[in-house]
Amino acid sequence: MTILIDNPPTIAWTGETIEIIDQTLLPAELKVITLNTVDGVIDAIKRLAIRGAPAIGACGAYGMVIAIDHTSTDELDKLVSEMKEAAEKIGNTRPTAVNLSYAVKRVFDAAVSGKSKEEIRELALIEANKIFAEDRDACDAIGRYGAEELATYKTLMTHCNAGRLATTGIGTALGVIYGKALAGQAVEVFAAETRPLLQGARLTAWELSKAGIPVTVIPDSSACSLMASGIVDAVVVGADRIATNGDAANKIGTFAHAVSARNAGIPFYVAAPTTTFDPDTSNGQDIKIEQRDPNEVRGIEKVNVPNEGVEVWNPAFDVTPAEFITGIITEYGVIRSDYCESIEDLLSKASL
Amino acid sequence: MTILIDNPPTIAWTGETIEIIDQTLLPAELKVITLNTVDGVIDAIKRLAIRGAPAIGACGAYGMVIAIDHTSTDELDKLVSEMKEAAEKIGNTRPTAVNLSYAVKRVFDAAVSGKSKEEIRELALIEANKIFAEDRDACDAIGRYGAEELATYKTLMTHCNAGRLATTGIGTALGVIYGKALAGQAVEVFAAETRPLLQGARLTAWELSKAGIPVTVIPDSSACSLMASGIVDAVVVGADRIATNGDAANKIGTFAHAVSARNAGIPFYVAAPTTTFDPDTSNGQDIKIEQRDPNEVRGIEKVNVPNEGVEVWNPAFDVTPAEFITGIITEYGVIRSDYCESIEDLLSKASL
Repeated sequence: MTILIDNPPTIAWTGETIEIIDQTLLPAELKVITLNTVDGVIDAIKRLAIRGAPAIGACGAYGMVIAIDHTSTDELDKLVSEMKEAAEKIGNTRPTAVNLSYAVKRVFDAAVSGKSKEEIRELALIEANKIFAEDRDACDAIGRYGAEELATYKTLMTHCNAGRLATTGIGTALGVIYGKALAGQAVEVFAAETRPLLQGARLTAWELSKAGIPVTVIPDSSACSLMASGIVDAVVVGADRIATNGDAANKIGTFAHAVSARNAGIPFYVAAPTTTFDPDTSNGQDIKIEQRDPNEVRGIEKVNVPNEGVEVWNPAFDVTPAEFITGIITEYGVIRSDYCESIEDLLSKASL
Repeated sequence: MTILIDNPPTIAWTGETIEIIDQTLLPAELKVITLNTVDGVIDAIKRLAIRGAPAIGACGAYGMVIAIDHTSTDELDKLVSEMKEAAEKIGNTRPTAVNLSYAVKRVFDAAVSGKSKEEIRELALIEANKIFAEDRDACDAIGRYGAEELATYKTLMTHCNAGRLATTGIGTALGVIYGKALAGQAVEVFAAETRPLLQGARLTAWELSKAGIPVTVIPDSSACSLMASGIVDAVVVGADRIATNGDAANKIGTFAHAVSARNAGIPFYVAAPTTTFDPDTSNGQDIKIEQRDPNEVRGIEKVNVPNEGVEVWNPAFDVTPAEFITGIITEYGVIRSDYCESIEDLLSKASL
């Protein structure tokens, strides 16, 4: 029951610093970098050296411990206000995923009752470790539920990277794929390259091929054809935020795959831990979509394309309406329509 | 009634050679290159220095004149067999578009009745010039019909490049856009970048911005979201081959846009001259889709992505089922379902 994994963890706490794989360098170079300041944590999240909603949640959580270590004071009032400031700064680094702001808030809330700087630091670290472990365990559970749900499907398509590189465990969408492999099921994967930053081509292809799972990269735009051709049995993607009606925000391009899957008559699954569900968001229209630097779209070759003076629209995510989603695979099992009801149930189980 | 066009023609016959814009260098460099051998013509078509179904048709047609100029013999039998060989070689350079093989066949058929090498050459050139002029005129007509059909739509989305750079005239899909501008209608364009070769980002953005038409480049995968947001009024694309039931082969990604347009409830138009309809193909399943070099998908950055050992699926085109197409704008007007009947009518008008 093992899959071939010989690379370092996506994120690890060393006791005083965070070590992460710098994902901007993959697949050309596998380099572990150390984050030892709040600004370093923010910068790493911003430039996508670490990405994936659960992974940046854990990174932000440990970032809070670093913030405490770097406070300028032992006065509790001042310490708390510096922690609050750090929590806001880290939490606002990327707006779409709910995990990051949720994780820093959890660490803050857990630590703030401490009676000394030492106790506050200890409580913060306990909570950060808990967030890390919970995500790892959720991935394992998602893998098991997903393998069961998708047992009859061999060829899966995915988008972006919702794998080991995006979580503290085996991943969510890729967790389902690893889960199938761990359950002894045959599995092969089509990975949409995921323009503009190519997380599919760079990261999903890298981690699946490292793990010995056959993977083929496709241009995002070819997914509709590929599905219609009958080659793909099902689609499984991760999510950055899920509204309580089941609308799922995920990497830009996900929505297109969902309508293409419906057109092809194949199931479309979202795999996500409960932390991805936002009890305060009742539908996808209310999810704020991050608009990223147009240069991500321009800077595709040595020459800049398109030419100067041409506008670029570069949203990082889109929202897939719940009606397009066959099921959402969580660590508590698979939920289906009616989503409003089942998500309410789920959130009450997880007491969110 | 003019649009701002100050760059050289996409393709021009000089009397003995073909001059084309080398589109592989755009938008960084505007360079006109000369083709003076059959191999040069084939190479230019193969490496996409000239592309777009009607433009490569004209290029192939003039290529036949060059073939005649370079034959090793004045013996008519041998000349004809060398011309036949050249026609096959040129015609097979790219398989999906019907225009290329159709154009070289037309030139061959028109020239073969000549009684001397000089007469054969003259007949071939007359036919090539006719192909060139017919395409230019068809583009103008498509522009007029398209402007009328899409008069109430301001914001159009398009894919790949079906413009001046793809034809001998103002283009097909972009012909509709220029047609709107020429008719004094407000028009602005979202251009899908069109991975892997970025004809949208490189070519459509370049020629529209040169012509003074506002254009915004988007990652292909974001089109579904963009349409669902209500920003786009209609989609208009070109076609490489249209079956007699209306199924339209066009650049990979077109099909995805069509299902996304249906999802958003906005019209999806194909603009194409009659030469694009293939009377011998009764439905899209019979259209041979060119599979191109995987390195087009890999070679996106200075480092190769994805990593070695990962497969790539790189079809150049997809087929949009007729049921997704609102109308096909031809130089004879707009045809709609029932396509089988209206395409039969159209082909009889054009006596194909």
